[in-house]
Amino acid sequence: MSDGTAPRGRFITLEGGEGAGKSTQAAALCAWLDGRGITAVRTREPGGAPGAEEIRQLLVTGEPGKWDAVTEALLMNAARRDHVVRTIRPALARGDWVICDRFSDSTLVYQGAAGGVPMAMLRTLIDTATEGTRPDLTLILDIDPSVGLGRADARVGAETRFERKGTAFHTKVTQGFRDLATADPGRCALIDGTQPVDAVTRDILAVVSDRLPLG
Amino acid sequence: MSDGTAPRGRFITLEGGEGAGKSTQAAALCAWLDGRGITAVRTREPGGAPGAEEIRQLLVTGEPGKWDAVTEALLMNAARRDHVVRTIRPALARGDWVICDRFSDSTLVYQGAAGGVPMAMLRTLIDTATEGTRPDLTLILDIDPSVGLGRADARVGAETRFERKGTAFHTKVTQGFRDLATADPGRCALIDGTQPVDAVTRDILAVVSDRLPLG
Repeated sequence: MSDGTAPRGRFITLEGGEGAGKSTQAAALCAWLDGRGITAVRTREPGGAPGAEEIRQLLVTGEPGKWDAVTEALLMNAARRDHVVRTIRPALARGDWVICDRFSDSTLVYQGAAGGVPMAMLRTLIDTATEGTRPDLTLILDIDPSVGLGRADARVGAETRFERKGTAFHTKVTQGFRDLATADPGRCALIDGTQPVDAVTRDILAVVSDRLPLG
Repeated sequence: MSDGTAPRGRFITLEGGEGAGKSTQAAALCAWLDGRGITAVRTREPGGAPGAEEIRQLLVTGEPGKWDAVTEALLMNAARRDHVVRTIRPALARGDWVICDRFSDSTLVYQGAAGGVPMAMLRTLIDTATEGTRPDLTLILDIDPSVGLGRADARVGAETRFERKGTAFHTKVTQGFRDLATADPGRCALIDGTQPVDAVTRDILAVVSDRLPLG
C-alpha cells in the first residue's frame, strides 16, 4: 500500500461499549499526534466514507429488531469495505495515521458475542471486507455497561438503535470486549474507561508510545 | 420451514440481463398460477422487504463506480438476507409459491463473472445470506445485451446505476448467465428472451409444468 517513498502510516482502533469514551479519546489521541508532527485521520465505523455513512444510517436508526444479526453483520461489513477502500487504505498509503472509532472487533462483539452470529461466519465476512487491512493497535475502553449506557443516554439524536438493545445485550458486549483483549494481547490493550477522562488519555498515550514508538 | 400441515411452497427465480423481460414474465407466471388456485408472492431483488428496499436504493442509484464490486456483493447479500428472512421463508412456510425477479445468480454474474469478485467469496456470502433457502427452479431469460439495454433505456427513473456500466460489462453478464445454465441444468432453464412476449411465456409455462407439476 506504500508508494515506496513514505512509510505506511499506523492504524489504531478504539473499541468498547456505548458511552465508553471512544470519540473523546480519539480526539485526544489525534491532538497528541498532531503535536508530534504526525498527520492523523480521525474516522469511525459504521461510516467513515460517503457511501459507508449512507449504510450507517440504515444501521443506527430504527427499531432494535429492524435487522436480524446476520443482516446487520453483512451491512456492517459492506460499510467497512467502503471505508477501507475509500478512506483507510489511501490514508495509510500517504503515510498518515488512522485513528478509528470502532472497527472489526465491534462486529465480533455486537453481532457475535452479543448477537449470536457464529464467530467463524463473522471472521469470514471481516476478511472479505478488509482483505488484510488490520489495526496495528486496538485500545479497548472497558466500562461497566450501566455507567456507559447512562452516559450514552445523555446524548441527543436518533442514532439509538444499538443503545436500546437492553441490559443483557450490553453486559455481553462488555464481556465480549474483555475476552477479545485476553485472546489477542499482542494487538489489544484493555484500558480502564471508568477513570477521569485525563487519566484514560494518559493510559492511552502510554500504550501508544510504548507499542508504536515514533522513532 | 413448514408448520407440518401445509406443504412448503415452491420457489422460482427469474434471471437475466437488463431488459430481458423478467418482470413481465414474473407477472404472467403469477397470473397463470393464480388461475390454478395457487397463491404466488411476486417479489424482486435487491429488495422485496422494507429493509431490503432501503438497501436497494443504495445499490441502484448513483454513479456506476459508487461501490466497488466487493462492497456491492456485501450489500446485495445484506438485502438478500433481509428478503429471505422477512418475505421468502414466511411465504414458503405458508405454502405459497414465491416468484422472484433476480436472486443469488445475479450476484454470481454481476459481481462475479462481470465484476471480478472471486466466485468462492460470492458463494460464501450467498450461503451466509440464504442459509439453505434455494430456488427450486431458475428461469434464465437469454437476450443479446444490445437488445436488452435498448429496452431498459426506454424506462423512466433513477434506477440506472447498473444499466450504465457499459457494453463490455453487459456482454459478460449475458455470457455469465449462459454459463450458469450450462453448469446447473437440473435447477436452471435457459429461455430464448428474444421471442415475442407470448412465446416466452409459453416456453416458461412449459418448463414450470414439466419440472414442478401441480399434482
